[in-house]
Formats: sequence, structure tokens, C-alpha cells
Amino acid sequence: MKAEIFSVGTEILLGEILDTNAKHIANELANMGIDVFYKTSVGDNENRLLDAIDIAYKRADIIISTGGLGPTDDDLTKETFAKYFNKKLVTHQESLQNLKSYFLNEDMPLSNLKQADMPEGSIVLLNENGTASGCVIQENNKIAVILPGPPNECIPMFEKQVKPILEKYTNKVLVSKSLNLCGIGESKASEIIKDMMLSSKNPTIAPYAGNNEMRFRVTASGKTKEEAKEILKPTVDNLYEIFKEYIYGEDNDTLQEVIVNKLIKNNMTISTAESCTGGLLASTIINVASASKVFLNGVISYSNESKIYELNVCKEDLEKYGAVSEQVAIQMAEGIRKKSNTTIGISTTGIAGPTGGTNEKPVGLVYIAIAINGKDTICKKLMLKGDRQKIREKTVHICFSNLLKLV
Amino acid sequence: MKAEIFSVGTEILLGEILDTNAKHIANELANMGIDVFYKTSVGDNENRLLDAIDIAYKRADIIISTGGLGPTDDDLTKETFAKYFNKKLVTHQESLQNLKSYFLNEDMPLSNLKQADMPEGSIVLLNENGTASGCVIQENNKIAVILPGPPNECIPMFEKQVKPILEKYTNKVLVSKSLNLCGIGESKASEIIKDMMLSSKNPTIAPYAGNNEMRFRVTASGKTKEEAKEILKPTVDNLYEIFKEYIYGEDNDTLQEVIVNKLIKNNMTISTAESCTGGLLASTIINVASASKVFLNGVISYSNESKIYELNVCKEDLEKYGAVSEQVAIQMAEGIRKKSNTTIGISTTGIAGPTGGTNEKPVGLVYIAIAINGKDTICKKLMLKGDRQKIREKTVHICFSNLLKLV
Repeated sequence: MKAEIFSVGTEILLGEILDTNAKHIANELANMGIDVFYKTSVGDNENRLLDAIDIAYKRADIIISTGGLGPTDDDLTKETFAKYFNKKLVTHQESLQNLKSYFLNEDMPLSNLKQADMPEGSIVLLNENGTASGCVIQENNKIAVILPGPPNECIPMFEKQVKPILEKYTNKVLVSKSLNLCGIGESKASEIIKDMMLSSKNPTIAPYAGNNEMRFRVTASGKTKEEAKEILKPTVDNLYEIFKEYIYGEDNDTLQEVIVNKLIKNNMTISTAESCTGGLLASTIINVASASKVFLNGVISYSNESKIYELNVCKEDLEKYGAVSEQVAIQMAEGIRKKSNTTIGISTTGIAGPTGGTNEKPVGLVYIAIAINGKDTICKKLMLKGDRQKIREKTVHICFSNLLKLV
Repeated sequence: MKAEIFSVGTEILLGEILDTNAKHIANELANMGIDVFYKTSVGDNENRLLDAIDIAYKRADIIISTGGLGPTDDDLTKETFAKYFNKKLVTHQESLQNLKSYFLNEDMPLSNLKQADMPEGSIVLLNENGTASGCVIQENNKIAVILPGPPNECIPMFEKQVKPILEKYTNKVLVSKSLNLCGIGESKASEIIKDMMLSSKNPTIAPYAGNNEMRFRVTASGKTKEEAKEILKPTVDNLYEIFKEYIYGEDNDTLQEVIVNKLIKNNMTISTAESCTGGLLASTIINVASASKVFLNGVISYSNESKIYELNVCKEDLEKYGAVSEQVAIQMAEGIRKKSNTTIGISTTGIAGPTGGTNEKPVGLVYIAIAINGKDTICKKLMLKGDRQKIREKTVHICFSNLLKLV
């Protein structure tokens, strides 16, 4: 079974966006044992898209296409595939309902209506995260899977709705598990199990580098789900053995979720005092749905004055050591903890740049401190590289990886 | 002049790497006025690559190919193009020297030797950052530009050596300007200038939807940069006229940057009191490098208690109206403004979900308030859709688009 991936959109051809959908889908198809020999990117142009479809179906059975399902006239992927397969577009009521629910507070432009028109006889894929439904057309042993372009719409639709359809065409079932690591880099972790990765065929082990984190994805195939799980288990156990000090969770677990759940379990509460991270630390915690059970209060103390009146930082220490110092970081963490009456207080202060650095205190110098009720406050000095956003993100990540060991 | 971009390598088809080279090259070609109608990814396979070359030269004059110039047997891009053009491969002495210089301290594997064999008569592109030379083959009005795959080799080679060659073939210069809008959706904005977009050929107008925002990109071509700018101007002026209440900036301007710069210019300061956004509002402001000039203090007031002790919200009102109410939003904004002694205080309180909603106060109900020194405090009630993260992001965006009109 051969598939070809289409990325439709002039923004791809103009190099305005990276084609992350195609990478994701290619990777998933490889895991499912579906061959991909070509990927094609084509603009929002009917004739060129028709030509590309024609070429692709001479060499593949399935086209999986992303993009070009928007409401404007230049979005014509669905229309062009319908034309190729000689299908009429008809209003799909559920899609229309979904579409209308996005415009509760405002009039829906008439142009959006076409997003509910689907090729007659196609399987419609409802969009949980946007207005454009996708669809699957099957005709004369050729299959077209038509997905929206925004990755937050395309990927969930592929994962939840397209994979089960594709699995019917392949005769194997795949089972995957991701092991999520923090405190070790991708290249270092991969080197440790280099031989194991090279020699593993079923299951396969693939490393992925994420935002300050990495994960190993282990994928096994079998005739049944149970068989695949059996094949998967020894390798997962082995990786747990090798990386036990680094693995913090599995699959979609995030570091902040694991921490929030540990805090809930241990009946602990937390408060934050941020300078350089400016709310990013609290915001990342609060994005976990159950955060309200543990997060009580936070301060973004950007000016020196507010460090004094909000966090009770000693004015003399601020003057003597400066706002970016171990002393101030510790007083911030202890100040927010006492004020908020939480088990834990955590603070950040640093120079995120691009300006504000000196020889003595360069851009990238950050102090984090963690105050825990009844324990000595811990402070770490960091020297981080990257732009302002990167330095702030790395600081938050390091707060979490330190917190993980303490709760 | 039409170009097609080839990405050669099985790792692309397996979805193991993101194709950053193709994005970069596409973007540069667009800027140079060279049309790219297709991008093709193909594996390290001679027959399939030959087929793809054949298809591409039926619709394009230039193929710019990246990848497949390594020392191993499965690297065969150069060999396949040479075969297509019926060229012998001959040792290129400078490439051989460059290659050997990479193996000063160790024996060079014999397999590397082939990296110095170049198609006879081609322009050789020496690699400053690796062992694989690239080349340009010109024959019968068809051009092949063959570049190595690693981005740190490919991009500098393209920038320094390929661009000057391509400039000789084009006779036009392109100039683009993006107009960034907030407070109006892509489909609504596009509908307003539908006819204008359809009839515009030079300049062209293309709409792009971003995160809660949208932009129009206007692109003009001319013989010189000055001529292109002249052609661009009336359309840009026209769009400014039509969308004057929505356009907040141009090109890479972000909403938060524009606001921070306006605050600096008007000598105003700001503080934040966040409940449902949990630090995201402050964090987005603080990611602007010059934010420290205007942002003084923020509070993430998640518990009811902290709304009282941090922001002086009236306990009786909290009990009577609830934390998610107009009354509390207003008191939060006024409380943080007074406490921080800033010109502006801005607050958010709402139900971001997925739990915590009721019939009366469903998930997605959010109040924002903006208190400005000497003016009446403004409060807006929002009903937002999406997951927790989306609701929080939309709230922040709406804070900014309201703030923009007030500062």
C-alpha cells in the first residue's frame, strides 16, 4: 500500500511556514507500515492541483492532503478533489452545526458556509478545533484523505479519525508508548542506547527532541493489539531500567502535569514569585486543568520596588547584591511562600536580554530558588543561552525539573 | 522563470526530520521573483528520482535539490542528475582538497572520495562547512542546482554561491509588506476586499490567519526595488484606508510590541491582576524586550483569599457575585493599579475549563477590566470557545485589542 502526502497552500510554496503536518503524517504512516515514496507541495491553484493529483494516483493508492479548506475563494482543495472524482458538493448538516457554533457572538460571513459542503458519499471528519471539516473519498481503489492545514486541527483529526480508517487497509496493529525524559539531552540519551536502537526492528525505538525535553517512542506491530503490547513490553521495561532517573512520565504527560498531580497527592500548595520569567512559570502551571487545587497565588515582581512591597525583599540586600542575585532569589521564594501561606514558594530572577547584561552579570544569568515549609531554601545559579523567550522557557523548565525531585 | 524544489532523502519521507531547507529556499526564491509551483520530496532511489526529475522539467526551468550528497551508497542525487543530463562524473581537485582537509588527523574512508566527483562541465560549489561539494548543471535551458542536505551546509551555500547565479536569470525584484490586523477575522476581512484581491495581479494581496489575528501580505514586482515600492504603495494606502480601525502594525510587529511602544511613548505604566489567564497576560507583555520600562508589577490571584489580600477585592462582593463577575474584575483592575501605582491596571477573571462551569457561568465566561488613572474603569464580558489554553490565549488577545484603543 502506497501513500503520497500533499501539502496544499501558497504559504508553503512561498516558504512562509514549515510543513510540520507532512512530517507528522509521514512518521505515522511509516509506523503503520504504509510506504510513502513522494511528498508534494502545491499551491492553491486548481489546474496545478489537478495535475498533481493525476501524477500521484499513477504511483500511489492514497493521497493524504493537508491545507486549503479555509473559507476564502483561494481555498479549493476539497473542490478540486471533488472535481477529480466527479463528485458534487452537498451541505453536511453536522459540519454546518459545528461551523455555526464558532460564530455564537458574531455574524458568520457567508463565505464560511462552503466549509460545510462536502463531496457526496465521502466520510466526513468533524473538526473539534476549527470550522473546516475534513473528509475521505474512496473511488475505484483510490483514496483521498483531505485534512485542514492548521496543525492543531490537522494532527488531532489525523490521529483520532484517519488512523482507524487506515488501519483497516493495513493488516497490522501498531502500539506505541512514549517515555518522556528530562535532565538529559537527545544526543546523550541516544548514544547510551545506540546499539539497541540500531538493532531493534520490532519494536522500533525513535528519539524525539522537544522543548527542553526529549522522549523515546517505542512502537511495536502485531496481528492484534495484545500481541503488539506483548512485543512492546520488554523494551519499555528495559528503557525504564536504563533511564529510571530521567523518565518523568509517558505519552502525553507533561512535566507540569506530573508536578501538579504529585502536589495534589501530597497535599501541597504552591505560589510563585517571578521576575525574569514574568508570569510564564505560573502560566505553565495554571495551564494544567487541576492547578487550582494547588496554585494559590503568584506575583510578577518586575520593579525593585515591587520586590520590596510584594515580597518583603530586604532593600539593603537589593542594593548590595542587585535584583539578580542568590540573596534576592531566596528572599523572593520565602517571601511569596509566607505571604501566600503555601507549602512551596518558587522564584526566578535573571537577565533574559537582549539588553541589560554586564560583564559581571551577563544576559542568561538566572537564579531560581525553591522554599519549602520546614526545609532549607534551595537556590540554583544558571547560565543560559538563547534569545529572551528561550532563556525564559529554559528557566521555567529547570524550575520544574528541580521541583520534581523535591515534591 | 519557474523553479521546483526537491528534497531528496528517505529521512524526509519517514518524517524523521523537518524540511527546513525547502522553507528557506522557497522563501528566498519568492523574494527573488522566481515562481515555485511545486515542491517534491523523494527518497534515495534512482528510478523514483529520475521520474521526479522528468516530471519537474516538464513544468519548471530550474530544479533546486537538497540532500543525498553523502559518502554512502544510498546517496545518489548527484549521480542521478548526471545520468539524467548524460554527464560523466570527474574528480574535481579543489573539492578533493577540501574533502581531505576534513580528515587531517584520521584516515579518510575511501567511500568519501566520491564526494569530490562532479558532473563534467558543471559549476562546482565548494562546501565551507562540510565534505560534500554542490554543483550547478546547465543544459538545454534546464538548470539543476544540487546542494547538500545538512542545513548548516545547504543554507550558506545557497546564500553565498547560488543566489548570485540565480540573480542573473531574473529581471525583477519583489517587495512585500504585511499589514497586521486585530479585531476582525480572516474571512470577514477578505470578504470586504474580495473583488480587490481577485483583480489584483501586481501587487498581489494574500490573507493569512494567525493566532487570533490576521494579516494581508501585499507583494509587488518591478524592475528595481524603487519601482516595486512605487507599485506597492497605492494598494497599501488603500488597505490602510479600508481597515484603518483594525491595522495595528506592519510586517513583524506584534500587538504586544505595539502596545509596549505606545505606553513608552505616552509615558504610561501598567500592572496586571490575573485569575484565569494565570500569568499569560503579563508573560506576553514581558516577552517584549523593552517591557521593563512600562511593566512594574503583576499578581496572579488564583484563590479567593489572594484576591482579597493582594488586590483588596471586597469580601462581600466576592461572596455575593462570585469571583467570575463584573464587580470582581473591576475591583481587581483598580486594586492592582492603586497598589502598583501605575497608569493602567488590567484584570482577567473567568472559567477556562474544562471543569468548573455551571449553567449560569459556563466554561468560556470571562470578564476583563481595564482601570486607567483618572478615567472610568471599563469592563467587558466575553463568551469564548475552545480548550483551556485557547480560552486563556483569546482572553489575552482581547485584553490587548481593547488596550490598543485606550493608550
